[in-house]
Amino acid sequence: MNQKQQGPNLWREETVSTQPIFEGKVITLQVDTVSLPNGKTATREIVKHPGAAAVMALKDGKLLVVEQFRKPLEKFQVEIPAGKLDPGEDPMEAAARELEEETGYRAEHLRLVSAFFTSPGFADEKLYLYFAESVLPGRSNPDEDEYLEVEAITLEQAERYIEEGRISDAKTVLAVYAWKLYAATGHI
Amino acid sequence: MNQKQQGPNLWREETVSTQPIFEGKVITLQVDTVSLPNGKTATREIVKHPGAAAVMALKDGKLLVVEQFRKPLEKFQVEIPAGKLDPGEDPMEAAARELEEETGYRAEHLRLVSAFFTSPGFADEKLYLYFAESVLPGRSNPDEDEYLEVEAITLEQAERYIEEGRISDAKTVLAVYAWKLYAATGHI
Repeated sequence: MNQKQQGPNLWREETVSTQPIFEGKVITLQVDTVSLPNGKTATREIVKHPGAAAVMALKDGKLLVVEQFRKPLEKFQVEIPAGKLDPGEDPMEAAARELEEETGYRAEHLRLVSAFFTSPGFADEKLYLYFAESVLPGRSNPDEDEYLEVEAITLEQAERYIEEGRISDAKTVLAVYAWKLYAATGHI
Repeated sequence: MNQKQQGPNLWREETVSTQPIFEGKVITLQVDTVSLPNGKTATREIVKHPGAAAVMALKDGKLLVVEQFRKPLEKFQVEIPAGKLDPGEDPMEAAARELEEETGYRAEHLRLVSAFFTSPGFADEKLYLYFAESVLPGRSNPDEDEYLEVEAITLEQAERYIEEGRISDAKTVLAVYAWKLYAATGHI
């Protein structure tokens, strides 16, 4: 895979130079100059991110979600529990950790639904989405600067939240699609 | 909506200060300092993006996809046609434009499937996903520094591409879920 020959229409962009711009707590930013088939160069703005894990967890058939303020959007959002990976952390362990920290429930069993890049045009963030068909009581322990409220919602509520814009992030919208498919076919 | 009262568990993060870091062709980066309920402050790294539009377009029942090199991932990826919004551009017009530029086909009719934020933890990018049940011949005219190959794939191929990691971005994975749901229920 990805061993493609280069051709005029399929071109691996080799790095001519890399300019580091910013190193933050969560992301780093660099601008790469790359070579093109026409002999010219172009720049690519690249955000590096450690990756993240999220869980669609059902409690008595309802989806566990958390509401919190999302500063980049300047609004409150309802999302499935999620968080970024600690260095070297296994995505499934991160998913289990975030679920318990944010909701106070533990997954009995986690299964990978999908792993996807959120914004491949400018970022390398990879998100691992897990499914837990049932949960057990655990301990709630949100991060120090994380303020959120937990709710368990039906599929109809989830669809209404999407219509209202209260749910509008990729991972949660995808989780609701997966849930609808699960409800319709028994498979996820 | 989003008129919530602040409380200890649901807190609107007011901006104490904003530090501009970078202004690029595609994204800008800033670091905001925000106030927390405990009287402390925290920083939020925020990428601003103009938004994007994507199309899941069926040609004779097959999904039109494009393969291209994604520099942030350092690999080739198969994705549905997509591109960022020009300033002030209507997302549906952007979707129609990108579909024709990248694949050489025009949509007869576009319908919004979903609009979602790709990475609400650090970016404000909003992606508008449209569905076209059929296409007509148009004109192919990729951007000057865009090199890609077009393919029309079956649902089975799409699922295999996901397994192989050739399809692994949020919008295309979501499109395949929506397609599976469409195949199972007749609704999207």
